[in-house]
Amino acid sequence: MVVIDQRRLPHALLHARWYTVANAAAGIADMTVRGAPLIGVSAAYGMALAARSDTSLGALHRAADLLAATRPTAVNLRWALERCLDVARELNDSDREAALRAFAVVLADEDVDQCRRIGAAGLDLIRERAQQAGRQVQVMTHCNAGRLACIELGTATSPVYLAHAEGIDVHVWVSETRPRNQGAALTAWELADAGIAHTLVVDNAAGHLLTNGLVDLVIVGADRVAANGDTANKIGTSLKAYAAAVAGVPFYVALPWSTFDLGCPDGASIPIEERDEDEVLIVNGGPVGPPATRARNWGFDVTPARFVTGFLTPAGRIAPTDMAAAAPR
Amino acid sequence: MVVIDQRRLPHALLHARWYTVANAAAGIADMTVRGAPLIGVSAAYGMALAARSDTSLGALHRAADLLAATRPTAVNLRWALERCLDVARELNDSDREAALRAFAVVLADEDVDQCRRIGAAGLDLIRERAQQAGRQVQVMTHCNAGRLACIELGTATSPVYLAHAEGIDVHVWVSETRPRNQGAALTAWELADAGIAHTLVVDNAAGHLLTNGLVDLVIVGADRVAANGDTANKIGTSLKAYAAAVAGVPFYVALPWSTFDLGCPDGASIPIEERDEDEVLIVNGGPVGPPATRARNWGFDVTPARFVTGFLTPAGRIAPTDMAAAAPR
Repeated sequence: MVVIDQRRLPHALLHARWYTVANAAAGIADMTVRGAPLIGVSAAYGMALAARSDTSLGALHRAADLLAATRPTAVNLRWALERCLDVARELNDSDREAALRAFAVVLADEDVDQCRRIGAAGLDLIRERAQQAGRQVQVMTHCNAGRLACIELGTATSPVYLAHAEGIDVHVWVSETRPRNQGAALTAWELADAGIAHTLVVDNAAGHLLTNGLVDLVIVGADRVAANGDTANKIGTSLKAYAAAVAGVPFYVALPWSTFDLGCPDGASIPIEERDEDEVLIVNGGPVGPPATRARNWGFDVTPARFVTGFLTPAGRIAPTDMAAAAPR
Repeated sequence: MVVIDQRRLPHALLHARWYTVANAAAGIADMTVRGAPLIGVSAAYGMALAARSDTSLGALHRAADLLAATRPTAVNLRWALERCLDVARELNDSDREAALRAFAVVLADEDVDQCRRIGAAGLDLIRERAQQAGRQVQVMTHCNAGRLACIELGTATSPVYLAHAEGIDVHVWVSETRPRNQGAALTAWELADAGIAHTLVVDNAAGHLLTNGLVDLVIVGADRVAANGDTANKIGTSLKAYAAAVAGVPFYVALPWSTFDLGCPDGASIPIEERDEDEVLIVNGGPVGPPATRARNWGFDVTPARFVTGFLTPAGRIAPTDMAAAAPR
């Protein structure tokens, strides 16, 4: 399997090759690939790689455990692994390798289809705004919920790509997204590559932009949405949601169904990954603080459902209170 | 005049010498010194330096114009310059140099005294919390409103220094404060130097910390507080205020009277400095985004008065609605 090494962007477009499930697990853990939907699809490809060397259910369960241990917050990972194990359980040893390979392709195709439908749900919002305002539409996003986080189009960026494709003048405020700078490194790179107008700002700028009429619409992705609509996404997302509420700017969360966790009642039940302090302490190879200072580094935060205007899903725009009923079983 | 070159911290404690008003103006503009109270005192020393070469009112007005043009948001700068010109106008040419030098010392002494009284106003809050909770008190701050931003003690950090001095167990969450990292570089350095417990986090972490019960109290500084209590401070401050409101955590703004602008009716009237995009685009000498991407870089944002629990002033704790009445005329 060949993946883009996202750690090298925006400076170099390099690829990594995975030959074994251990390669896949390492690549998810070290964030060669990241983004909730892509993590799910990558895990399915990891299971297909596992089946190349051992198709026994015991081996496949061990492979799933290895992959599941890499990242705790994005539910897409566990969701994909459970579906892979369901496929494997229905088949004989000899059929599993081909079936898991085919199933990974199915999940990738599903992701493309769902991202397109998410985009259509959000495109209406941008189109309406363009018609009402008669000027460039200003979208704010956070982190990278773009095509790099998925297979094509992305989740949060999908409405922007579709709007741009139909000639709507749209501009994206890209938040740098400390500590790993996925906004600056990935979203800005994607948008520059697609020729879409965008401007980089520090994460701290969101309040100023929102309360000064410089944003029409916030669209972010998600790593896990609980049954009640509470949304775990990249650390800092909740700050944008609170500022959007103060400013009266709509705040949308875009997600494929694999990100919705009906078994998780609320945000307090979502595990929040804590990562190495050096991601905070070291930037571009140099320290930002004094030697004695330590750091904490949570990767995600939870935005309470009441701050979410609506969800952009493959089934259209859905209110937080209607998500549990709308989700496929 | 000798100042700490704050651009070199936390990696080196170096000093800069100013011999002329042009040195002072350049040092304020390039942020060798920064922090609203220190900018005010530095401008007064700049006026004293100006008087060494020409004590005519015309020359002193030109010096004040030069200094006033360096930074637009912190009102302390203009406040100090106006007071210096008041002093100069009352005197003959031959008395102005000594008087302006003496006056700069007076302003510095006033700052020390006001910071001590601000600290006493906030110390009560920390002491009460320590007694109620019976554990380490968790304070969150933003940027650097510490002794580096003032002469001694600082504004927002003054209560923390006083609490530590009386043996209260206090811990500070230090936000890195992109794009110039004054939290990581200056506040962390100050607290490490003073032996006060602290942890560095990215600016994005504020929502997670506040809504998970990890913060008892937010205390920030200010660059200008309008007559109605709207508060301009380092970009990102308003995001902490909104999250504190959601979490029910008290949000205090600490300021000397030179930061209160009775002539400014509200936040919309406060000029917000926009700085060079390279502060966003380049970190530790390396780019964070792709070459085609441009950035915007506002230095401050406005926190509406309704999100401020209270002001910590030299006259004690004051509600936003009472500030105009409490301020000295």
